[in-house]
Amino acid sequence: VTWPTTKLTDLLGIEHPIIQAPMAGASTPALAAAVSNAGGLGSLGCAMQTADVFRSEIGTTRKATNRPIHVNFFAHEAPSPDAAKETRASELLAPYYEELGLGDVPPAVATHFPFDATMLEAVLAVRPQIVSFHFGLPDEELIRAIKDTGIILLCSATSVREAVDLEKRGVDAVIAQGWEAGGHRGTYLSSFEGARAGTMSLVPQVVDAVKLPVIAAGGIADGRGIAAAFALGASGVQMGTAFLTCEEAGIPDIHKEILLKSRDDDTRVTKAFSGRPARGIVNRYIEDMAAHEDELPDFPLVNTMTGPLRKASAARGKGDFVALWSGQSVGLNRALPAGELFEKLVEEAQSVFQHGIK
Amino acid sequence: VTWPTTKLTDLLGIEHPIIQAPMAGASTPALAAAVSNAGGLGSLGCAMQTADVFRSEIGTTRKATNRPIHVNFFAHEAPSPDAAKETRASELLAPYYEELGLGDVPPAVATHFPFDATMLEAVLAVRPQIVSFHFGLPDEELIRAIKDTGIILLCSATSVREAVDLEKRGVDAVIAQGWEAGGHRGTYLSSFEGARAGTMSLVPQVVDAVKLPVIAAGGIADGRGIAAAFALGASGVQMGTAFLTCEEAGIPDIHKEILLKSRDDDTRVTKAFSGRPARGIVNRYIEDMAAHEDELPDFPLVNTMTGPLRKASAARGKGDFVALWSGQSVGLNRALPAGELFEKLVEEAQSVFQHGIK
Repeated sequence: VTWPTTKLTDLLGIEHPIIQAPMAGASTPALAAAVSNAGGLGSLGCAMQTADVFRSEIGTTRKATNRPIHVNFFAHEAPSPDAAKETRASELLAPYYEELGLGDVPPAVATHFPFDATMLEAVLAVRPQIVSFHFGLPDEELIRAIKDTGIILLCSATSVREAVDLEKRGVDAVIAQGWEAGGHRGTYLSSFEGARAGTMSLVPQVVDAVKLPVIAAGGIADGRGIAAAFALGASGVQMGTAFLTCEEAGIPDIHKEILLKSRDDDTRVTKAFSGRPARGIVNRYIEDMAAHEDELPDFPLVNTMTGPLRKASAARGKGDFVALWSGQSVGLNRALPAGELFEKLVEEAQSVFQHGIK
Repeated sequence: VTWPTTKLTDLLGIEHPIIQAPMAGASTPALAAAVSNAGGLGSLGCAMQTADVFRSEIGTTRKATNRPIHVNFFAHEAPSPDAAKETRASELLAPYYEELGLGDVPPAVATHFPFDATMLEAVLAVRPQIVSFHFGLPDEELIRAIKDTGIILLCSATSVREAVDLEKRGVDAVIAQGWEAGGHRGTYLSSFEGARAGTMSLVPQVVDAVKLPVIAAGGIADGRGIAAAFALGASGVQMGTAFLTCEEAGIPDIHKEILLKSRDDDTRVTKAFSGRPARGIVNRYIEDMAAHEDELPDFPLVNTMTGPLRKASAARGKGDFVALWSGQSVGLNRALPAGELFEKLVEEAQSVFQHGIK
């Protein structure tokens, strides 16, 4: 049984047009290698890594697979420190630190790094087959250097406007990230209020607007979703949440447990964890902070201020303060090793293709 | 060429499993008849009608088609008048009335009626083949009376929670309304913040949770969307916005013009027009009122207070104050007569089924 298209598989050098989403803080060399070895595209979310950590993670992954791998970076604006916002965030967070006996709220320090010349050097040295960006693209000379080596370039778009911009700027394929997607929204040109199109709306409008292959992301969690994405005109899919309950995913056990009992109406988009809109399972922290999201420091500064809270909450087996990143299709999640899950996804999708749409 | 399933077509007595959404204030006997005559299910949105107007509209529709028709009612709680909120709304709206030279802001009067015994009597007399509800179901005895006559009962669900509730209460099929959908969100059990699952997420989770046929709604605007909905496990689709640019749709010309030049990131969900969350193209009124949505009277009381504004704005060919209801797939809209559009939709969807998913 073959896939109905090889437009994207040829471009990426993979067998099945299914990308495991790079999820900074959750993807691991073991997860990426398992997916690449199964014939998909395994990915590493590297936005929180220094160049040294990045090199080391790629090394570990390469020992586990000789297939193509995909690394992702963020291209956000470096944040402006804001003492007033930091003080306000400390005030808001202090009661939780007291409740959990964690001492003082730590200062705001950047944890996610916009892609820069140092990281470019590491990328050019290590040469992953595919590089992608979230929150738009970095400066043109960085992009050109990546493309000149023959590395395939992808980037997320959350609107037609962004997809058209990315095509102009030379990406090889567009990742159309629908409203359903877990984690950070990749929005960078459209407003956050406008760029909320569901995958069912976003994918065909992006397909009509660009000539590039379109990778559908958001709400795709089983073979039905994969087949639906192809019906909409996508050439491939990117799936994140579905892989979070694999044993290879690097998230706390409590996060996995909560994912496995959550469903469609349990997620929210919040700025409270990082300073940028991101989707996760609603918990005490998201609810409490809903009215204060705009008072917090810029992305990603608030991240270090909530770090000990998130860690302590997870260590106690409670989800109250953990960033429980999740997409809206979480009700379809399965707890399987990544390779096994991947085989099932391929079988399910191909069964829809073979037996027709019922 | 036949459809891959007849589960829903048998139930509804139609040829193609495509329902034109009943849109109170936009659907017309001509639109409903054109769709039913083309082999789909034509629908009338009757929530703003008295029993007499309802009987007359059904009469007009029946003269134009002898195929099944579908009527929709709202099952919201009757609003509690609130003098303070009415005064506040008047203050907020007065500057616009002055700007447009429209005199005083009119009082708040209910324009949409919760389904009741009087309307039940009219329904039982006229016997449309299919009756559906939005905002949940009316009381059990009203439902039983409808079902006892053999009328097929549908209702919208915006979450798995709601779909499961509707199955227990005896509906014959569930309309899974995804986040992409234009007009009013049918949410009645889940929170408005939670019940925002995109169609890609909502449909398979609802399909897994109920035994009933599931009708996918939200973001479906061409054959690709129809095929995708079937891939997700739906037995049929309901499409609203796609029919709004048909000549038979009863909306102002300016509304049609704006739809034809809008796309994925141009819509917002707002409570500012009616008092309940509904999706439309963002305009001056939605933007201005964004900060005041919770100060307005309950659904549907605010409707009469904005009526002259909406009318005058449309008459002047300006969209500033018009309720420009629209789903997120508006970029796929086509200006065609309803019968012609319907034929195209069937051809497009069947082409995906026949030629495989590319």
